Amino acid sequence: MIPWRTAIATSDATNIWIRGHEITSLMRGSTFTDAIVLLHLGRLPTPGERRLLDAILIGVADHGSGAPSCAAARLAASGNRQSLSAAVAAGILTIGDEHGGAGAGCMEMIAAGMALAKRDKLTVEEAARRAVADAVAAKRRLPGLGHRVHTTDPRVAALFEMARTEGIAGDGVAFMDTLEAEARTRIKPLPMNIDGALAAVLHDMGFPPPAGMFVFIIGRVAGLTAEVAEEYLRERPMRIKFDVEYDGVPPKPE
Amino acid sequence: MIPWRTAIATSDATNIWIRGHEITSLMRGSTFTDAIVLLHLGRLPTPGERRLLDAILIGVADHGSGAPSCAAARLAASGNRQSLSAAVAAGILTIGDEHGGAGAGCMEMIAAGMALAKRDKLTVEEAARRAVADAVAAKRRLPGLGHRVHTTDPRVAALFEMARTEGIAGDGVAFMDTLEAEARTRIKPLPMNIDGALAAVLHDMGFPPPAGMFVFIIGRVAGLTAEVAEEYLRERPMRIKFDVEYDGVPPKPE
Amino acid sequence: MIPWRTAIATSDATNIWIRGHEITSLMRGSTFTDAIVLLHLGRLPTPGERRLLDAILIGVADHGSGAPSCAAARLAASGNRQSLSAAVAAGILTIGDEHGGAGAGCMEMIAAGMALAKRDKLTVEEAARRAVADAVAAKRRLPGLGHRVHTTDPRVAALFEMARTEGIAGDGVAFMDTLEAEARTRIKPLPMNIDGALAAVLHDMGFPPPAGMFVFIIGRVAGLTAEVAEEYLRERPMRIKFDVEYDGVPPKPE
Amino acid sequence: MIPWRTAIATSDATNIWIRGHEITSLMRGSTFTDAIVLLHLGRLPTPGERRLLDAILIGVADHGSGAPSCAAARLAASGNRQSLSAAVAAGILTIGDEHGGAGAGCMEMIAAGMALAKRDKLTVEEAARRAVADAVAAKRRLPGLGHRVHTTDPRVAALFEMARTEGIAGDGVAFMDTLEAEARTRIKPLPMNIDGALAAVLHDMGFPPPAGMFVFIIGRVAGLTAEVAEEYLRERPMRIKFDVEYDGVPPKPE
Repeated sequence: MIPWRTAIATSDATNIWIRGHEITSLMRGSTFTDAIVLLHLGRLPTPGERRLLDAILIGVADHGSGAPSCAAARLAASGNRQSLSAAVAAGILTIGDEHGGAGAGCMEMIAAGMALAKRDKLTVEEAARRAVADAVAAKRRLPGLGHRVHTTDPRVAALFEMARTEGIAGDGVAFMDTLEAEARTRIKPLPMNIDGALAAVLHDMGFPPPAGMFVFIIGRVAGLTAEVAEEYLRERPMRIKFDVEYDGVPPKPE
Repeated sequence: MIPWRTAIATSDATNIWIRGHEITSLMRGSTFTDAIVLLHLGRLPTPGERRLLDAILIGVADHGSGAPSCAAARLAASGNRQSLSAAVAAGILTIGDEHGGAGAGCMEMIAAGMALAKRDKLTVEEAARRAVADAVAAKRRLPGLGHRVHTTDPRVAALFEMARTEGIAGDGVAFMDTLEAEARTRIKPLPMNIDGALAAVLHDMGFPPPAGMFVFIIGRVAGLTAEVAEEYLRERPMRIKFDVEYDGVPPKPE
Repeated sequence: MIPWRTAIATSDATNIWIRGHEITSLMRGSTFTDAIVLLHLGRLPTPGERRLLDAILIGVADHGSGAPSCAAARLAASGNRQSLSAAVAAGILTIGDEHGGAGAGCMEMIAAGMALAKRDKLTVEEAARRAVADAVAAKRRLPGLGHRVHTTDPRVAALFEMARTEGIAGDGVAFMDTLEAEARTRIKPLPMNIDGALAAVLHDMGFPPPAGMFVFIIGRVAGLTAEVAEEYLRERPMRIKFDVEYDGVPPKPE
Repeated sequence: MIPWRTAIATSDATNIWIRGHEITSLMRGSTFTDAIVLLHLGRLPTPGERRLLDAILIGVADHGSGAPSCAAARLAASGNRQSLSAAVAAGILTIGDEHGGAGAGCMEMIAAGMALAKRDKLTVEEAARRAVADAVAAKRRLPGLGHRVHTTDPRVAALFEMARTEGIAGDGVAFMDTLEAEARTRIKPLPMNIDGALAAVLHDMGFPPPAGMFVFIIGRVAGLTAEVAEEYLRERPMRIKFDVEYDGVPPKPE
């Protein structure tokens, strides 16, 4: 039987290495955020990259208990008090293209835009405008724009400002800035959301598209564990959502 | 490396066997409920046992979209439209001692009561009364009694009546009937719930205690899949639970 | 806040209805498989439909502990002994287009083929041949054909024979039979697998495409619960997969 | 209907606060590890605490693809290519008392030991020795000691050395050091594992017992996301574990 292969971690009887780095050396000299970059990109980040990734992870960690991820984690904590990990997992399962995962689709859009720019010798801005035109023509929503709760998402400006200060803002940030401006003109005001902002910055740090969802998951788990801890501490088991309205076929007489 | 072992299923290039039964023979001559018994007990059920297990599985399949399992499955379906299985799994993760899993604890209580009855030469009824006395002394809740929604759970009487008609009602049913009566006298009216009723019947069919939760899960998955299907069909993505009240430390001025 | 809506189940203080049917009436007179059809299609099945769905559910329930779903459930049971539901959920999470979920994609292909047949006045067989031609041109794999383990999957012939005997075999069965024959001619022998067979039959019973995955999940949960029960009963906790080969960057000297 | 309550996060149309701190202020001035402490303890860590928590999170992030969590995540990634979050969740579900979660039980043991020490006016060392005596008498395993792979876990010494350097090592570290020494004398050499070491340090930082599992989950998600990313990138779908041995009843002739 063929063994599984990995290039991530290995160990012997007395040591463990992550991407070739001795684990105790990382524990003594690196931050958790450094280790996230090392695990995913195989290299340690620059100080500026570390600051940006810290900002992204903080920015997505929690947002209120009513988000699908937090509400599902609390429901699982409420019915299944035997397993903390089950409750956290229930929260993670709500994460997808529609909640927390739009960053991955957005990074694909940016990558496709950059590939197009290269092929057709377009500027980044022209590529972004073409992405808007394509979405309008196909009646598709643009990932990374629009928010259900915030009129302006304060995390976006903070992140982009940091990306510029750290000298990391590049094609990704330029693409998303133009996308937002062009959408405003051609569709309607659709303020960039945190998924769009983190997609731009992760693109500029060299992460591949799935990182748009992975980084959200890593950050959100910090919040989900706190939500589950609070549910155990403050609430009685077995929450029921009472306000459900039945609109199916009427009960049949027997 | 030692291979994993199993006594459940095996196959070769042209056939599959479940507990020694050829799968096509089961497909042609058995019901799904038969196969559940075969998988768990290694034998096919009698017609009466099949009818009782069908009744139990139907009884726990669904109950309203507000149950934690259904609500969590819908939240996951709402945020993560990429994976039907992820939504079903999120629903299952809410199942534990407090939601849908009390049957397992109840079956343990019945098994312990029967062991005590044997050791101390007690009748089933005396063992059940002792279980109530112990719970009262230890201020513990009795599994299988009480319900958050129903004053009388119609499924309980239906199931016990069927168990008597089929000649399957035995120690388990007698134990739970006495438990309910004794709790009414010594504590307060705590009508038996479906977890308590299925625990009694599964005990009398020879299932081990964890089956009290497994059977609930099998039945509930039928309902969860329907809930997820309905969520996809009728609702827009990304449900948010808006009515969350913040009562933490007030926002600090920067 | 707008209440959630559902047409599946409702209850009051003393009763529960599933799709308008009183639950105790279903418990007394229906099988679990009937209830699955009722939950998903809003109607009870004919006796022939019930036999076919029983056969499908049995056919996918288990297949050996080495399938991704069973292996993942056992790994979770092995590390997390606190929650039976968590182990079952881990197994379900492995189900997707590549494992157990191909039936959904296959039902979409059949539905698209039937729509094309109607639009372009093709026979079912012509539509199936066109599906093969399209897949060959696009270098796409055809869902429902081919198997990693079986040269001939015995469940396929059994299911199609039953579908014919019960008078349920229709466009879906004809489409898949032609697809298999045409693929054999134009590509290579790719025997139909159980996902393809159940897709054909569920199509002919009127189920929508996602049912191809939902029905697999419902059936497989019967097997997963048995696998988890066996893991608890026979194995010590904390299985480790030892045969992993590291091929990443060599450990760095500190 | 009573709204849900939370003291973790709140937001309005233009801002978000975590435990009262404006999110953009945290993004600009804190690390992700700071935010984890803030979410769980309601306060920011000292520099020494931050370094220790970074070391713990790095120490548990990954350890090799054969651990139950990594293997289950890869199996899910292998069968269900539709959802990155489903694969990560499958990995998390393997985490429990037997894998990654022993830290929680260990923190409970330390907390109980400290309560006993206070009540009976014992030194920390006397309390730890009593914990060993109790475990020997009850034939219970001691959480936090022993390892399946490492004879000496290099992470333990590194972490305790850092805890001493930072002036954070307190009762927890003393308790676990004595526990290990006493177990060596009274049972056999059982080197402290990372769960025992992180339990000691988290206790000394003021975390409640469930944090022993939550912190493991947060750290491990960094590794799980990398494992899932690698599975997608390097492996073909649908891994099967072939080396399963059937030892059940022999196939019956039909």
